[in-house]
Formats: sequence, structure tokens, C-alpha cells
Amino acid sequence: MIRVGVFGATGYAGVELVKLLTRHRHVEIIFATSQTFAGKRLNDLYPAAHPVTLIEPDSADLSQIDVAFLCLPHATAAPTAVKVLAAGARVIDLSADFRINDVATYEKWYGVTHPAPELLDEAVYGLTEIARHKLPNARLVATPGCYPTSMLLGSRPLLEAGVVTGTIISDSKSGVSGAGRKPSMTTHFVEIGNNLVPYKIGQAHRHLPETQQVMKWFDPNAPELIFSPHLIPIPRGLLSTLYVPISADSVTVRKLYDEMYADEPLVDVLPDGQIATIAHAANTNKCVISVQVVGNLAIVVSVIDNLGKGAAGQALQNMNVVFGCSETEGLQ
Amino acid sequence: MIRVGVFGATGYAGVELVKLLTRHRHVEIIFATSQTFAGKRLNDLYPAAHPVTLIEPDSADLSQIDVAFLCLPHATAAPTAVKVLAAGARVIDLSADFRINDVATYEKWYGVTHPAPELLDEAVYGLTEIARHKLPNARLVATPGCYPTSMLLGSRPLLEAGVVTGTIISDSKSGVSGAGRKPSMTTHFVEIGNNLVPYKIGQAHRHLPETQQVMKWFDPNAPELIFSPHLIPIPRGLLSTLYVPISADSVTVRKLYDEMYADEPLVDVLPDGQIATIAHAANTNKCVISVQVVGNLAIVVSVIDNLGKGAAGQALQNMNVVFGCSETEGLQ
Amino acid sequence: MIRVGVFGATGYAGVELVKLLTRHRHVEIIFATSQTFAGKRLNDLYPAAHPVTLIEPDSADLSQIDVAFLCLPHATAAPTAVKVLAAGARVIDLSADFRINDVATYEKWYGVTHPAPELLDEAVYGLTEIARHKLPNARLVATPGCYPTSMLLGSRPLLEAGVVTGTIISDSKSGVSGAGRKPSMTTHFVEIGNNLVPYKIGQAHRHLPETQQVMKWFDPNAPELIFSPHLIPIPRGLLSTLYVPISADSVTVRKLYDEMYADEPLVDVLPDGQIATIAHAANTNKCVISVQVVGNLAIVVSVIDNLGKGAAGQALQNMNVVFGCSETEGLQ
Amino acid sequence: MIRVGVFGATGYAGVELVKLLTRHRHVEIIFATSQTFAGKRLNDLYPAAHPVTLIEPDSADLSQIDVAFLCLPHATAAPTAVKVLAAGARVIDLSADFRINDVATYEKWYGVTHPAPELLDEAVYGLTEIARHKLPNARLVATPGCYPTSMLLGSRPLLEAGVVTGTIISDSKSGVSGAGRKPSMTTHFVEIGNNLVPYKIGQAHRHLPETQQVMKWFDPNAPELIFSPHLIPIPRGLLSTLYVPISADSVTVRKLYDEMYADEPLVDVLPDGQIATIAHAANTNKCVISVQVVGNLAIVVSVIDNLGKGAAGQALQNMNVVFGCSETEGLQ
Repeated sequence: MIRVGVFGATGYAGVELVKLLTRHRHVEIIFATSQTFAGKRLNDLYPAAHPVTLIEPDSADLSQIDVAFLCLPHATAAPTAVKVLAAGARVIDLSADFRINDVATYEKWYGVTHPAPELLDEAVYGLTEIARHKLPNARLVATPGCYPTSMLLGSRPLLEAGVVTGTIISDSKSGVSGAGRKPSMTTHFVEIGNNLVPYKIGQAHRHLPETQQVMKWFDPNAPELIFSPHLIPIPRGLLSTLYVPISADSVTVRKLYDEMYADEPLVDVLPDGQIATIAHAANTNKCVISVQVVGNLAIVVSVIDNLGKGAAGQALQNMNVVFGCSETEGLQ
Repeated sequence: MIRVGVFGATGYAGVELVKLLTRHRHVEIIFATSQTFAGKRLNDLYPAAHPVTLIEPDSADLSQIDVAFLCLPHATAAPTAVKVLAAGARVIDLSADFRINDVATYEKWYGVTHPAPELLDEAVYGLTEIARHKLPNARLVATPGCYPTSMLLGSRPLLEAGVVTGTIISDSKSGVSGAGRKPSMTTHFVEIGNNLVPYKIGQAHRHLPETQQVMKWFDPNAPELIFSPHLIPIPRGLLSTLYVPISADSVTVRKLYDEMYADEPLVDVLPDGQIATIAHAANTNKCVISVQVVGNLAIVVSVIDNLGKGAAGQALQNMNVVFGCSETEGLQ
Repeated sequence: MIRVGVFGATGYAGVELVKLLTRHRHVEIIFATSQTFAGKRLNDLYPAAHPVTLIEPDSADLSQIDVAFLCLPHATAAPTAVKVLAAGARVIDLSADFRINDVATYEKWYGVTHPAPELLDEAVYGLTEIARHKLPNARLVATPGCYPTSMLLGSRPLLEAGVVTGTIISDSKSGVSGAGRKPSMTTHFVEIGNNLVPYKIGQAHRHLPETQQVMKWFDPNAPELIFSPHLIPIPRGLLSTLYVPISADSVTVRKLYDEMYADEPLVDVLPDGQIATIAHAANTNKCVISVQVVGNLAIVVSVIDNLGKGAAGQALQNMNVVFGCSETEGLQ
Repeated sequence: MIRVGVFGATGYAGVELVKLLTRHRHVEIIFATSQTFAGKRLNDLYPAAHPVTLIEPDSADLSQIDVAFLCLPHATAAPTAVKVLAAGARVIDLSADFRINDVATYEKWYGVTHPAPELLDEAVYGLTEIARHKLPNARLVATPGCYPTSMLLGSRPLLEAGVVTGTIISDSKSGVSGAGRKPSMTTHFVEIGNNLVPYKIGQAHRHLPETQQVMKWFDPNAPELIFSPHLIPIPRGLLSTLYVPISADSVTVRKLYDEMYADEPLVDVLPDGQIATIAHAANTNKCVISVQVVGNLAIVVSVIDNLGKGAAGQALQNMNVVFGCSETEGLQ
């Protein structure tokens, strides 16, 4: 059994992770922490959740675990990672702290001094589909952001083939759980229930530099990215409609997608004539992609569950590879 | 023109009231206040709202108004009422401060010392349909709560006829705006979006004593009331399903409802075979009622918009009667 | 492995059942039928569903299965049951055909001649919690309706204790999947999205006689039932607020519920002070119950997922007992 | 008084139009038709609607009206227009029949022979903001589609200034009432309630040629248009996020929008730093626009209510201009 600790179990990603972990045949949850709700059980907060009793993060016995999942805010996760690694356990981080490998870029976009820059070199960017060779026995994994996961899996075949010829536009739509569990006017039912809210559109959202960094890995000549997130009145699910200028024809594009994802257990490419919808991926741990070509433009729809493949699901997928489990254990 | 001031214009009842007032042909809005948002305009908070600039409550020039609407929390409204009355203007209060005429009952249920008990005798309980004779030129009107409005209009024909024979049960369902604009876990989209939440069921909600008080006016022998509110995932609308043991038959009951409300401009009684739904009253200022008899039980469905007839609409209806306007001016 | 056939796999209960069956370790799906969509795969209709290819009901090879689940309309299920039984397989029926043991009552409420009255004596009413002794090796199981499941589990401790003194009122609220997959104005997003719709309230819904029949099993002197269903704008989940006049005090009532359900794996009784909500049971196969006493009235809130414990979940729970599997296999 | 007939009063646009007409001080509704529901009253279908009795279209006395609104399907509207014009009344058409002035284009996209091509020359394309000089006393007005209205008002300042340098992309999102009132799986609450559905993305939707035609009026060198509609789980509201490559800087762009719409009563341009949301325009008859420039790209968000400025509201706005009423009568 893999002995697991969950830091920050009461956020939406945390509670989803606990749910997935309880279904995993080779995992034992040793502890789950909450700064605010220590002493309560998780199902006191979420009626249908696992009844694990929450403890203070400082009370966590790190010597008892093989791996810690960090469902913590950025800048809080990194110091915790330092402690966990020092205790000899591995870290699957769900925060932004180890996603961006350039310290200055991180500090500019997140507005804080990086708490542990010395760990950046070692951190594996855990978009599982591109990280499988680095993940086995990795000590520190940075799980990608939700928006980046959808955009990167959606655009990768085109970027790696070198056929992208101009600015990529991603018009992305996310369910409200992506805005977190802290109550605010943004997430008030009356404000968002019949609404649709574009926010930080253009090049203003923190997930932009992360996505651009990895796009450059796919294609050193990757063009600029325009990324426009929109909040939509559904609890979970995330859909990016990508507009990608290309130099390839539709037959080539079809082949690029089919070949790249043919053997991927958690990436589905729809056949011609079908378009991905939130329902294709909500409450799953998959990324579902459709693609069509109109003139010199590929229009890609890439869908995930923001709490599944966009957070807890991918974190667990990464853990599976780190520890040599079946990659989809607990995820289907 | 009736010169109007609105205290607390940024809550859901306040913004609805401002919308109604701007449609009223004989009203001029002199000021609208907000403790938190003074200096901003109302449409900075609600995109489609009237662009009135909000002022501090203490900056309001009470000498310039004929009437003030108080969309304030209980215990804050009463001291404001005292000032407004002292300045010679009238008060339409939307809070609970002047609804309950027994000071001890108010203080028990609201957990505060009543700020102005000396005004209780003068305050008119503004369920318009029963208060028309007292409203003209009234100085102080207490607008009923949303749940009480639905329950009282729904049960009144039976109570006044003296045919109620046992405990009345009201299973009531309210849209989320009834929980107020302050963000909380209760109103978080992800928590309530696919949920239905019974709360304070039985005899635990503050609207119980107010409703019981008025039921006794209808029938001094009115029985006990069981009142179970439920929060439902819609922005606005309130439906009470009332179960009333009676000694009358269905023909008599039909006649009681049809006759009592035949001439009411804002109360509709549906014909036999139709059942009232939220859609009958949402975004209107009406109360819509259906009734059927099963054995010795009348089942009444009474629907309002909690922000319309349940708050701002009824407040304006009361103002119309106080000032001698057409009762439905601004409300149709 | 238990070899399973699913008749009517494309309705909401059918697709939910297929999902549960694919998670069951001792089940193999042999076929899934659809009159309308034969030739398509289930995930052509439901993006995230299992990719089983649908066949015509008449093409189903009954000799290959151990058990058939019938997710068919009433009056269609019974003739299919006859064929399946003749072929030597068992039947778990999700329709109403074998729930009511009095033919005349069935024919009156369902408006059809019963297609197989000779099977009624053998059929086991599969409210699992009361049927465990009859289920092992049963040939024909009638899975209860969704509303009856919530009402029966919610009232059973009081009825069996003989403390109910008067008419039971159930004010029940169901998600839209309860209205079926066939498009109609009732289920149109624009019509129900911001609405709440009482329908067939009083004693007009077909689930009334089924519930009354079983209440008489609990207590031969069981009183009349008033049952008022309401449609609410959520996809799934069902909550009944039960008002039960009783002769017992709150300590006794608490004890009745705690003792009756202490060992039930799929019935949870909440502690004092907590009230069940849809979120307690949605997307689970549990029934979650809260109870409080106000004077001589017990107010019980009983919640299920209408597709889980209210349909597919309970059907599978019954199959588990029929075949000697762990009762909760595939259900947690 | 302007005597009005409404053909097709029971669709979502029709019922919205009747609501607006009843608020108009200079309009009298002479009749409202329905093929399917003749004999019923409109409030039998929509609980809160005006209680006008519906008549068969063939029973309509055209000699009694000054103008007919046609809320009919394409190819049904045109023959009705012929009759109304022959009777001497004017026509405000809400269908697609007279929007596209090239017969072949219409017939290709709508798949029918044009029923009245002889009227195309006379028909005024009623995007009110560009049609004011042609509307007074016009006999036949074609009210634009909902998506085109949002895209055209959103892009017009850039196109008329001649600063657009490449393909315009419109990622558009519409509430479910845009899909019409006829029940279907697309509009089933359970299917769309927690979903987001891209459809006919790229260059496949019928609103494409209409929009391209008018863009050419704005700029004869207008580039290609990519138009991707998405269905979102809200009842009403439509938001287009437009990506427009430009040769102008942000100061120039700001000036173009502010100047073009400074005096428009029903088009609002938000100040820098604000982004338009559905809530800005839902339940109004306005178009609300925000614009920002990122490098050589203008990102415009253009929002309307699909039933307001996108259908019934604009139809009434056009009628006001045709008959010399205040342009916003009945619309504020």
C-alpha cells in the first residue's frame, strides 16, 4: 500500500482527491489536513464525502507517509514541500509553485518571492502524457493548472508537428468550482446562476505563462498565445475552444491527432463530425478533444473536468506513474 | 412627485426597489444609501441597474424626502426610522423591526433589544390586502416578510371563515436571493447549484412568530403552525405548499378563495385543475394561489417573487396606498 | 461472473445501471437493448457512457444471461419478464409492473390491463432493507419507485413501532431526470430552469398506492397518506419532507431510527441537529435520513438519488442479494 | 394608437414581444396567432404572460391592423408578409426570410426556395443603429438574427474605420431560449443543465452569411469571419467574444467605440477595465460592449439578450422608428 497524506483536503480539489484515493486499491490515506477545519470530519463539510478526520497541518506525521499531495495555495505549498521532502517522502503538488521553471516569471505573475527556488530544477511538470519518462520515482511533481491542461493537450499535435503559423487563441470556459471554495460575489449563486463572465481575457491570467512555457517545449517557435477565460454557471467542467492558424490540411491534422493520442488511456479524440462538450469529460478523468479545419485554421475543442484531469485526477495519474501502479488505477 | 430616499440600496431587495421606483411615474429618487459602497454607482455593483450614486446613510438630507424605504438589517432599521420620522418624512420599513407587535417576542426571536418599542403601536403591518384602511397617510409601515406573505395570503380565506380544524403545515421553498447578498457557503454556486436544502424546519425560523401573530388576527382560534423552509437553486421566487385541515368541502373552499380575492389586483386565484408554480409569480409583484381539497385537507399552493410581493413590490404597493396613488402604479 | 442483460439501456435509469454494472467486479454485460437506438453505442447518446453497442430487444439471446434488468416502461416490462423467466434467467424489474400486488389497483392507476398477473405472487418487492430474507435466489424482483423508496425508508421506524397517530404528509421534491429522457415542455431547460413545479399533489400520483401498500405491511393500521411531488431544477436527487403525527417523544423517536438503521450499509441516519439535503445522497446509492420532533409531530427528511437508491442502485443492490454477492458491491 | 397583430405569439420571441407591446403606450394588440394553440390564452402556456386569446393565423383580420410582427419560422414568414402587405399593413419580420438580399445565398443556407424574392429589394435590414434613415414609413423590415446583432454591433467601429487586417473570430455563447421552444434532447434540462455545447462552429451556422453581408456594408474589404456558437445553461442572454486583428492602437480603438455609440440609447460601451457579462444585458433591450487591445488584436465582448435586442426588443425598436414613436418607447 502507498501511504498518502493530503494537505488542504477541504478545497474542491482536495475533496475530489480524497474521493479518488478511497477508490484506489493500493492507497491508504494516513492523514488529511485543514488549517481551518481541523477536528472536524470531511463529511461534516461535504455531506457525501469520506469521513476522514481532519488534522492541523503541523500535526501531520511525515514519517508515516510515502507521498504527500499538496492541495494548498501557491506560496504555501512550496514550504510544505520542503518539509515533506526532508522527511523522505515524495510530493505531488497541485499548486502553481513548481510549474514555472523561471523564478522571475513566477514572481512577476504570482506577486510573491518564490519560497523554494532550489527545488525548481528537480520538479517534474506533470502533464502526464509528456512526463512519463521523468515521473517514475520522481520526488517532486508539479501538477499542471486546469486551463493549461486543456490548452496544452488540445494544441500539442499541431505544435509538435511544426505546422502552427500564427497567434493561438484559446477561448476557455470553466465551471465555478475552478474559482475555489471561498465564498465571494463571483461565486454567489444569484450573481453567476444565470450569467456568463469573461475575466482576465487576453494575456492577463496567471495560467498564460505556464501554458506558453510548455508550448515552447512542444515547438521552440511556438507563437504568441491569447487566452480568454470565462466563468460559466455549472459546478464543474472546463472547455477550451482553440483557434490555431496552420499550414496543414484537414487530412494531415486528423492524422496528427489520431496518432498522437491513439494509445493514451485518458485522452480521447472524437471522430470527424463530432464536437466535444463539457458532458464528454465532466465527472471523468479524461481529456476529450475534437478538431476540424476551416481554411487555414484548426478549431480544436478540448474538454476536461477541472477537478479531474485538471487537478485531482491528473495528480493521482502522476502518482500512479511515480509509484509504478497502473496509470489509470482509481481513475476509471 | 413623491420624493423618495432608499436606505440600503445595494441588497437584493434594495436594488429591486430602485428598479421599480424608476418605473413609477410619480416618484423621484432623491438619494440611495450604502454603508459599504458609498461613492460608487448602483450599476457598478449590478450591471443592468439604475446609475444612481450611492451616499453614506449619515449624509442623507432627510428634509428633502417625503418617504424613506428602509432596506436595512433588523435593529439597524428602527433607529433610522426614528430619525426619518423626526425629520417629518414617512417610513416604509422592509426589515423585521416593526412587524411583531409584542416586544418580548421580537427580542426573543431576533436576539436584540428592540431599538424603538415606542413606535410599535403606530406601525401598520403592511400586508396590503388587509391593511388598506390603515395605510392612507400612515407614518410608519412594516412590510411583511417574504415567507409570511405567501403563507398569510394562502391561508387567509380558510382562517377568516373559521373552518381550520388543526395544525397548519407550510412546506415552503425559496430562491437563493432570499438568503441575501452576503457571500457564504450557503449561497456558493457549487454548494447550492444542484442541491435542495431544508433549514430551520419545524418551528425554528424567525418568520414563524410573525406569521402566527397575523393568523390570530384572521382567526383568534388559529391553530399551531409548522413552517419548514427549503432553499432551492433558483435566483428568485418563493412557493409555499400549505396543508390545512378543514371542516369545509371543496365547493365552499373554492368560493372562499374566489370571493376573497376577486377584486384584488395583485392576488390571482387559479381555476380548479391548475396548480401554481414559481413561474406564475417570478419577476412579478403578484401572489398566485391554487387550492384543492383532499378529504378534510385543503392543499394550497401560494407563490410570490420573494423580491417582488415578498419585499420591494409590496413595499411600493404600500407606498402607493399611503400616498393615494393607484395601488399598482409601477408594479405591472 | 454474473452474466447480465439490460433491457432499455438508454433511459436515465438504464444508463446509470450500465455505469454501475461496469464497476461491479463480478458482472459481465452480455447485451444492452434499445428499441430506438439499436446499432448505436451507448456513448453515442451519452458522451461519457460505456461504449456498449445497443441491440434490438428481439435480438437478445436470453440463453446467455443469468439475469435481466428491465428498464422499460410499465406494461412493456411484464411481457419481457415472462420471456426472460421462460428462458431460465432471473429478472430485476425497474418498472411498476410487479410492485403492486393487487391487480385491480394496478389497472386503475396505470390504465392498462396487467400483462402478467400470474407472476405477481412470486414477485419480491425489492426495498432491499425489508426484503433480504426473500431475495436470495428470487426469480423476479420488483424494484420500488423512487418516491416510495424515500417515503418508506423515512417513515418505517415510526410505522413499525405503531406510534403514528394520523395522516402522513409527504412533501416530495425530485430532480428532472425523474421525469424521464423523453423531451417535453415539462423538461425544457427554459421552462424548468428557474422554476419549481408542484404536480399531481394530494392523492393523484401513481406512486401513492405502492407506498400505501407497503406502509400497511409496516403497520396494518397505517393511516392515510398525502403525497405531493414537486419538480425542482436539478438533474438528479430526491428529497421527501415527511410530516408524521406521533404519540412518541423525541428520545424514543431518535432511538427508533438509530436502532433500525444502525447496521444498514446504505441507509444513514444523521445525528440530532443536522438536516439531510440533496447533496447528502446525490450521486450515491444511499438513503440519508434526518428526524426531529416538534410537539406531536415527527418531521423526517429522507433523501436519495432518484437514479441511485431510487432506481439503478437499488436494482443492483437487489441483484447482489439475489446472487449472494456483497450487498454493496459496485455501489460504493 | 398603433394597431398591432402578432403572428406566432407562442414562441419565445413572440411571448417576449407581447410582453413588450403591453408596456408600450401607443400600441393596441388587435390579435395574436398560433397555429397550434388557437383558442387558448397566452397565459395558459406562460403563466405570467398577458391573457390574450390566440387565434388561427387564417382568422386574422388584416384590415384591422397597421403593422404585423412575424414571429414565424423562415419560409412561413414570407408568404404571410405578402398577405399583410397586400392588405395595406406594414410588416416587421423576425424570421430570416428578408435578411439576406441574395436569393441564392438564402436558398443555399436555408434549403428552401425563397417564397417572395420580389420583396427583397424593398426590405430594410433592421439593425436599427444603421437603418434609421431607411426605417421611417418602411413597409417591410427584416429584424436581424441574434448572433449577427451581437457580432455586428461589436465589430462595426473597427470595420467602418477600415482598421481590420485579418480574419475575425467570434466565439459566441447563447442561452437556451435561442434554441427555440420545441422540446428536444438539446434543450432537455438534464442534458444541458450542467453542460456547455459548441455546435456548428467554424463556418457552418446560418447566421454566418447574414453577418458577412453586413460586415461588407461596413467595410467592402471586410475579411473572412469565423463564427463558433456555443449553447450555455442559462435561459436567456448572448455573449460574443470577438477577436479582431487590427492596425490601430488602443487609444484609437477606444475613441472609435466611444464616438460611434456616444448617442445610442440602446448601445452601451463600458469604460476601460470593465468587461461585459451576460448580466449587463439580460432582461434588457440593450447591447453592451467592452473592448481592449492586446498587441495587434482587439478583443471585443458584445452582449445582448437574445430575446431583447436580439429579437423582440429590436423588432419593437424598429417599429418605433417606422411609426415615428420615441425609439425606446416600451423598451426601458
